[in-house]
Amino acid sequence: MEKDTLLMFSMTPLDKGESVSKYVSRSLDIIDKSGLEYRLNPMGTVVEGSWEEVIKVMSDCFEKMSSDCNRISVSAKFDFRKGKSNRISGKMQSVENKLGRDLKK
Amino acid sequence: MEKDTLLMFSMTPLDKGESVSKYVSRSLDIIDKSGLEYRLNPMGTVVEGSWEEVIKVMSDCFEKMSSDCNRISVSAKFDFRKGKSNRISGKMQSVENKLGRDLKK
Amino acid sequence: MEKDTLLMFSMTPLDKGESVSKYVSRSLDIIDKSGLEYRLNPMGTVVEGSWEEVIKVMSDCFEKMSSDCNRISVSAKFDFRKGKSNRISGKMQSVENKLGRDLKK
Amino acid sequence: MEKDTLLMFSMTPLDKGESVSKYVSRSLDIIDKSGLEYRLNPMGTVVEGSWEEVIKVMSDCFEKMSSDCNRISVSAKFDFRKGKSNRISGKMQSVENKLGRDLKK
Repeated sequence: MEKDTLLMFSMTPLDKGESVSKYVSRSLDIIDKSGLEYRLNPMGTVVEGSWEEVIKVMSDCFEKMSSDCNRISVSAKFDFRKGKSNRISGKMQSVENKLGRDLKK
Repeated sequence: MEKDTLLMFSMTPLDKGESVSKYVSRSLDIIDKSGLEYRLNPMGTVVEGSWEEVIKVMSDCFEKMSSDCNRISVSAKFDFRKGKSNRISGKMQSVENKLGRDLKK
Repeated sequence: MEKDTLLMFSMTPLDKGESVSKYVSRSLDIIDKSGLEYRLNPMGTVVEGSWEEVIKVMSDCFEKMSSDCNRISVSAKFDFRKGKSNRISGKMQSVENKLGRDLKK
Repeated sequence: MEKDTLLMFSMTPLDKGESVSKYVSRSLDIIDKSGLEYRLNPMGTVVEGSWEEVIKVMSDCFEKMSSDCNRISVSAKFDFRKGKSNRISGKMQSVENKLGRDLKK
């Protein structure tokens, strides 16, 4: 399966108060061990794979979080581009090339 | 499976110009025939079901759209609440009850 | 100013437990009194106006919510189409026309 | 003004075909020169500032893009936390501390 899909998502419990890094770190553990390329950013995590692969890792995170959280909000954004891979770094390089200088990443 | 998850999503081809209702209507056909409760709004569609059910209908829409679109953007937001169902109308009623008047829906 | 922008947004406090309709209803009160066209759906509210108008109503909601909430998450999606207005109903009609039947709204 | 708000956003023209890095790079130029802390990731840019500051930089990007694009889609997510600053790096460190190991950033 081609790794033509980027998924950026964040998954947050709404019933655990304002500090939720304990729950977020469990998701990152799942993502880090999934074998997929990923990048953590301050507002979520970008995962690269086929549609099925990125859906599976998000669903694995949901299964874990829903085991002990009663209300969960998930924001997700998918970017599919047929026949393109290695986009997790390629998209940013393309923008830097157009600008002719480095950006903060 | 409990219908404890609301999914609002929009799925848009980026390689078909600015008018994309032809592609959006194919997704709505899939959603309308899925048997799940749903509501169309001007920015997307809200579907109600279990996590697996709402993931499946979104994936069915993606499979159809990716058959003839080269770049696709999907925005999705999930709201899971353990043990709660019939939320597609209940959430709005709850807000109207708090306000003590009807809102435009 | 042309009403060429649709904004769908939801604004949620993260420090008030899993039931947040009290806070959401205050936002709806602001939106309802703004004079802008809007539609409430189970996952957020769609507002129609110029870029400046829809930004202002979202910022008014934020000012109110941040007065007594310590952590707030906002999801927003804008759809701008130059020279087009009355899109809050027009987009859905366009999809129904393509399909040749009514959908649940 | 306290820099208590993180905004992650992506802004994409829908009428310019599937390759849009020319337009995205103009937004990054505006962000990079804004003086605000930011981080580019493969699916968007995270900007740190007050609510007013992050709204302004997003609006500046919109003003530029709408000068020569007819249809624009913007996804945005705000995370406000009263009295907290330097969160653009702090949120990721908090997750890594919980996990006890480094993650890909």
